[in-house]
Amino acid sequence: MSQNVHKVKDYIEKNKNQYLDTFVKLLRCPSVSATGEGIEQAAGLITDMLRELGANVLTYKEDGGNPIILGELNEKKEGTIMIYDHYDVQPVDPLGKWASPPFEPRISDGKIYARGASDDKGNLVSRILAVKTLLEVLGELPVNIKFLFEGEEEVGSPSLPSFIKNYEEQLHADACIWEGGGFDQKGRPMIYLGAKGVVYLELRAKRTGSDLHSSWGTIIENPAWRLVMALSSIRDEKGGILIENFYEDVADDPEAEQLVRELDIDRSEISSMTNNGELIEELPIRELLRRWLLSPTVNICGIYSGYIEKGQKTVLPSYAFAKMDIRLVPKMSPERVLSKLKQHLAKRGFNDVEVEVLNHGYPAARTSPSSQPVRLAIMVARTVAGKEPVVFPNIAGSGPMYLVTDVLHQPCFSLGINHPGSNIHAPNENVIIDYFMKGMWQCCLYMMNFVPWIRLGDVPYL
Amino acid sequence: MSQNVHKVKDYIEKNKNQYLDTFVKLLRCPSVSATGEGIEQAAGLITDMLRELGANVLTYKEDGGNPIILGELNEKKEGTIMIYDHYDVQPVDPLGKWASPPFEPRISDGKIYARGASDDKGNLVSRILAVKTLLEVLGELPVNIKFLFEGEEEVGSPSLPSFIKNYEEQLHADACIWEGGGFDQKGRPMIYLGAKGVVYLELRAKRTGSDLHSSWGTIIENPAWRLVMALSSIRDEKGGILIENFYEDVADDPEAEQLVRELDIDRSEISSMTNNGELIEELPIRELLRRWLLSPTVNICGIYSGYIEKGQKTVLPSYAFAKMDIRLVPKMSPERVLSKLKQHLAKRGFNDVEVEVLNHGYPAARTSPSSQPVRLAIMVARTVAGKEPVVFPNIAGSGPMYLVTDVLHQPCFSLGINHPGSNIHAPNENVIIDYFMKGMWQCCLYMMNFVPWIRLGDVPYL
Repeated sequence: MSQNVHKVKDYIEKNKNQYLDTFVKLLRCPSVSATGEGIEQAAGLITDMLRELGANVLTYKEDGGNPIILGELNEKKEGTIMIYDHYDVQPVDPLGKWASPPFEPRISDGKIYARGASDDKGNLVSRILAVKTLLEVLGELPVNIKFLFEGEEEVGSPSLPSFIKNYEEQLHADACIWEGGGFDQKGRPMIYLGAKGVVYLELRAKRTGSDLHSSWGTIIENPAWRLVMALSSIRDEKGGILIENFYEDVADDPEAEQLVRELDIDRSEISSMTNNGELIEELPIRELLRRWLLSPTVNICGIYSGYIEKGQKTVLPSYAFAKMDIRLVPKMSPERVLSKLKQHLAKRGFNDVEVEVLNHGYPAARTSPSSQPVRLAIMVARTVAGKEPVVFPNIAGSGPMYLVTDVLHQPCFSLGINHPGSNIHAPNENVIIDYFMKGMWQCCLYMMNFVPWIRLGDVPYL
Repeated sequence: MSQNVHKVKDYIEKNKNQYLDTFVKLLRCPSVSATGEGIEQAAGLITDMLRELGANVLTYKEDGGNPIILGELNEKKEGTIMIYDHYDVQPVDPLGKWASPPFEPRISDGKIYARGASDDKGNLVSRILAVKTLLEVLGELPVNIKFLFEGEEEVGSPSLPSFIKNYEEQLHADACIWEGGGFDQKGRPMIYLGAKGVVYLELRAKRTGSDLHSSWGTIIENPAWRLVMALSSIRDEKGGILIENFYEDVADDPEAEQLVRELDIDRSEISSMTNNGELIEELPIRELLRRWLLSPTVNICGIYSGYIEKGQKTVLPSYAFAKMDIRLVPKMSPERVLSKLKQHLAKRGFNDVEVEVLNHGYPAARTSPSSQPVRLAIMVARTVAGKEPVVFPNIAGSGPMYLVTDVLHQPCFSLGINHPGSNIHAPNENVIIDYFMKGMWQCCLYMMNFVPWIRLGDVPYL
């Protein structure tokens, strides 16, 4: 380990309390994109942090949208890293299930509990502080940095596509570190090379007129039955999707398949990640992993019709709906999937079942594990954790990463600070302080090695 | 028309205001069996009314049950009529949709608006007042009368079966006038000779663990999908029930079929009864009527799973349920139907979908149109309305009428005061005052002619 690495590591350790204070300050500031609470204040705080680093800051705001912040530190180096994070958080409900108020950070058992601690303020701050560390220890940055911070990730990033389109030139970089990533239960780094795409919609069946006494059910069609029948035409018993040609764009990706084959994860680890959810029993572990990471799915998020309170009411409902998400793998397009679904329903006589698109969504994204920036991420993570990283072809969830991989054409991956018990989107969200600090160091090492690695194939600081 | 009939008719007219006062007094008294509000007070009021007629009154109360009132006027005549009504009413919600408070009766446009005006205090009071009228005009009753009034009809009559069983002897009668009945849009009397049976249940699918991020939907089964698939296995596109042997107990009833063939009701009349609900288009009117009145049905009253609020949440729900009623026709037994449903689900692999019976319900009931008490009802109704009655084999809804027809073995039918716009179970429930008065007169004529008709085949007062 070179002397510079030691200096960096020591500096981070020495400034731990001050760094945690900075983190806690941002955690105290609510920034709930669903309601708008605290958004402007959080954006202001982050802009100040970037300016303190000496960054040029551009703030972009679409009509009614939350600020997108582009912070640039152009050190005239031969390589540029973009760092994508979001400063908005999920709503805090159910508030009653929090052990302490979500915007009053609490330190306990080596963790910080607060909404956004992991998703995504922990990553955001650790990366800002990594840049700060390098500037203070080395006097300069070894690579150009662009921070791309948005405040609408939790509501589908509606302003991001137009921003990316309008500022494509300013957003040029050689690689992008995406939000997320972290360490698994065994302390192994988890690196994600992509995300699934997603479409969100409602299926709606409706009668004219109001709710009726259920004795009319013999001669007036029940929209709950229509919805159930339309839904059941979409999926078979094993989870296979029956929409015609649904799978035609599901392409082989030998590198992704190889990553799944190499994943050292067993059934019990997955089960514990799902709060002991029962996995589909008959599938062998390798097939479970393949499906989880590489298969598209059509999910019912919610379904409603008629009387659902306690006890009985004999009613013929006037409408029924189901909220659904469709997760997409690379090559699938949201538009084509929606069009196939609509054709499927029409062909089977469900013209009375309306498809209302709540979010047109976005396609999947994936970066090759053999790309140079990813190979560096793996090396850096191995050094920091002292353990072989677990590399996923993508998260099973979704994110607008395609804007980076497919519009800006940058290799993109997640290398971060989360852990399986982070409770992202849930009560008692938290981050392990050790991982928060490790994330900072990891980010420093990545920045220090980036230009030598990309230009010369060398990693002088590992 | 004999002199006695004139006297009766005149007496009713002369006492109209006083009679309406009595009615309004009962309407003012809430009696919501779902909450218990006002039940005891209403039962007390009615007991007083019966005692004022000189009736022997027995009050029966099961543990936690509402009073069942048996009022007997034994005039030692050669025939006995039982009158069944209920004094409990449906809850008033949604209160905001009432034009005036539901327990402050309002007279407007020849109608009285109040909860219970039609269902069933209107029938109950009109029949008590008919007895009062005969006693005052004739000095005695021409027939023995038994009033059977319960306060739990709107919650499934849980105490009635044991009462009927315990008091079978005291309940002996030659015929029973059931609640309901009335006049259609053309002013024609509607007489119902039966009711469907019913079973109420929930289908429930459940995962272990809590709600999860929907990205797990590829490898953890979604209970909403399981429920949808279980439901869709139960019914075909045309409403046919796919439960094995579901129809084996659906027996031919030539008399009921004949009544349906004779029904002078067109598509628009049915449609307006359903607040312009769209009838299943391709069925001819006769088939619509057959299905409506003579077919069993499996209905979804409500269905729920996961996130159903505004907008989007990508969730894998932890449970899903559907509330369902199954309407039964004569010969079908609730127990057999439930057992067939459970077998059906087990056979198709839905062992994870639980059947929770919320109400074991009861079988259907039907009285022959050729029975003497029914033939008299038709003659009386024709006289009162001056129009040919419309005789239904049964209502499409349900009621515990089997206790009278199949346990007490009495012919039973509905001959009452309702109209298609009564808004039963809905806001702004009302009764047409003219029908309320006609119902009284109708009841008087029925009592006056009963013994001569049953004993001698004569109807001296028509």
